[in-house]
Amino acid sequence: MVQSQELMKLSKLGEFGLIENIRKSTFRKSPSVLVGIGDDAAVMKMSPTAHLLATTDMLIEGVHFDLTYTDFYSLGWKSAAINLSDIAAMGGLPRYCLTSLGIPPSVSVEQIADFYRGLNALLRRHQTALVGGDTCSSPKSLLISVVALGEAPASREIRREGARPGDRIFVSGTLGDSAAGLEILKAGSRGRGQGSGVRSREPGVRSKDVKSELRNPKSAVDSLIQKHLRPVPRVEWGRKIALSGCVNAMIDISDGLSSDLFHICEQSNVGAAVYAEKIPISPALRRAAAHLGQSPIHYALSGGEDYELLFTAPAAKIKKILSFGLPVTEIGEITRTRKMLTVDGMGKTTAMRPSGYNHFARSPYTR
Amino acid sequence: MVQSQELMKLSKLGEFGLIENIRKSTFRKSPSVLVGIGDDAAVMKMSPTAHLLATTDMLIEGVHFDLTYTDFYSLGWKSAAINLSDIAAMGGLPRYCLTSLGIPPSVSVEQIADFYRGLNALLRRHQTALVGGDTCSSPKSLLISVVALGEAPASREIRREGARPGDRIFVSGTLGDSAAGLEILKAGSRGRGQGSGVRSREPGVRSKDVKSELRNPKSAVDSLIQKHLRPVPRVEWGRKIALSGCVNAMIDISDGLSSDLFHICEQSNVGAAVYAEKIPISPALRRAAAHLGQSPIHYALSGGEDYELLFTAPAAKIKKILSFGLPVTEIGEITRTRKMLTVDGMGKTTAMRPSGYNHFARSPYTR
Repeated sequence: MVQSQELMKLSKLGEFGLIENIRKSTFRKSPSVLVGIGDDAAVMKMSPTAHLLATTDMLIEGVHFDLTYTDFYSLGWKSAAINLSDIAAMGGLPRYCLTSLGIPPSVSVEQIADFYRGLNALLRRHQTALVGGDTCSSPKSLLISVVALGEAPASREIRREGARPGDRIFVSGTLGDSAAGLEILKAGSRGRGQGSGVRSREPGVRSKDVKSELRNPKSAVDSLIQKHLRPVPRVEWGRKIALSGCVNAMIDISDGLSSDLFHICEQSNVGAAVYAEKIPISPALRRAAAHLGQSPIHYALSGGEDYELLFTAPAAKIKKILSFGLPVTEIGEITRTRKMLTVDGMGKTTAMRPSGYNHFARSPYTR
Repeated sequence: MVQSQELMKLSKLGEFGLIENIRKSTFRKSPSVLVGIGDDAAVMKMSPTAHLLATTDMLIEGVHFDLTYTDFYSLGWKSAAINLSDIAAMGGLPRYCLTSLGIPPSVSVEQIADFYRGLNALLRRHQTALVGGDTCSSPKSLLISVVALGEAPASREIRREGARPGDRIFVSGTLGDSAAGLEILKAGSRGRGQGSGVRSREPGVRSKDVKSELRNPKSAVDSLIQKHLRPVPRVEWGRKIALSGCVNAMIDISDGLSSDLFHICEQSNVGAAVYAEKIPISPALRRAAAHLGQSPIHYALSGGEDYELLFTAPAAKIKKILSFGLPVTEIGEITRTRKMLTVDGMGKTTAMRPSGYNHFARSPYTR
């Protein structure tokens, strides 16, 4: 047991400091471990032609999700999706899933059945089998831990550390939708007098307000909420991109563009310049953002949980990448100097700081 | 979202009812899934000669462990051990481990470092590499989820469902030590005025009382406590037993002999008769039990977390099994009638009921 009187608080060290500590103290790399702690998924030799991928994520009620505006079907779907997204970000194919639940007395059998319906619906889409897990009681909060196992052809998986100066930066889909969807959900739950109870101090935005201000409110607001509650992991896209052999580094956007680009830059010892105007913003976000009182770029850079792919490729490969017909957008360039910048339409540069979620620096619900 | 007014409580359905519900609703078995939900570990085809094993367990502070009498090094050790024990119970070799932690603000960096020191010490013993995981903040309780991946030669893994009438029942090591160790720890924490605060209502047994009554108190009490806090997964034994080809069914004893034998009987459609006097009891348990006010057999049958192996083999294989020189004991016989019985020294039979932990039928700390 630790006897020291002055123990270091995790809030000082931060999540990435902690991960680095764990990595350094870890049992020696076995020769079959090709990628260990610190990438989207671990990579192990499985056979001469195939590698095994493994990733796991924990979701805690009150930290990662709020049951006042999350239904159990969506929760099951999303719990699987965020893990399959990690497999996708390596260019792998998900194969198997394991799920552990810590269930509080307030949750019913029917709600758990809904959770598994949502989880299985997502797994079925990706031909991934639920093969095991654990269930136990939890005194208060619902606790979820999901494991995804996948495979990739030997040496075709894409890591975070391969970005090179001159590489172009691409993202799939559109960014910021999930974060705006979350804000609309939170506002709606405050409007209903549920949730965090901050209504009196901070009236905020209500989903009804946003909806009433938008011309076609249902589809716009609903698409943002849908993106938050039931993200679609980019499994086929990731695999196509990885198998093309065009790409040097890849990650999925779970913490926000600025944070996840920071991971690539740090692990590749490079910097980046992102052209703010090129960041793909959905029409729904563009319309909702005005009413939410934030710029769309704010959500795109700092908002997490888009589960889109972020990757870099040499300029000579741009044509080939675009020829796949995938919805990917070139948004910037990898640089030699280890700085991250955004460049606006007038050519003015601004330092970009990783602004995603640090689990130990903030309290729950401040996301 | 579930709208029904009368939701079924999990406490009615029970843990094994829930697992059965999940299993039935699960996405179709992929042809590469050889063993899915409901065994010690899932088994998947990995290559023509090898199978992949996967298992995961969740540990919740206040349900599975109590930090008033558990140090972080032991907690890390045990979190890994219980998962490696599941791999051992299939006859597999553990290879990789992933760990997720939900960390409350009260826990320090040094304590987390101690947790990983314990975890890595156990993994190093078994040449198992820590390859990934997740860390996040938890509002109140420390949450742990561990995944173990292992491998076994194709079709050599041992399931729960293969027991046949006439098979002899064997266990490794001694049973009940861990449960007695837990009781001594709980009594000690009550004695220190910490923990559950039941001291005034229920003075109970104090570890000091037990120690002072025993002739060689330190080694006896400490070995029971050690068995509870730092169980040793029977990896080498499980592998030897599985590779021998002698064994029809195997499980590790995590919930107690009666519960885990029940799993074998239920999944094999058989019954069992256990000779109470043959159940291996350690000298330490024999001496401590008198002072704890329970029979050693009580701890052996109902006490969980021994992490010994329980397996069945045809009578013709007894000689071969004993020739391995492993500390295994024959304790009974598999029967055709689907009943579980204990037989005492006088030949009197008593029905044996699975009495291990049901996560949804009891409240925390009643274990």
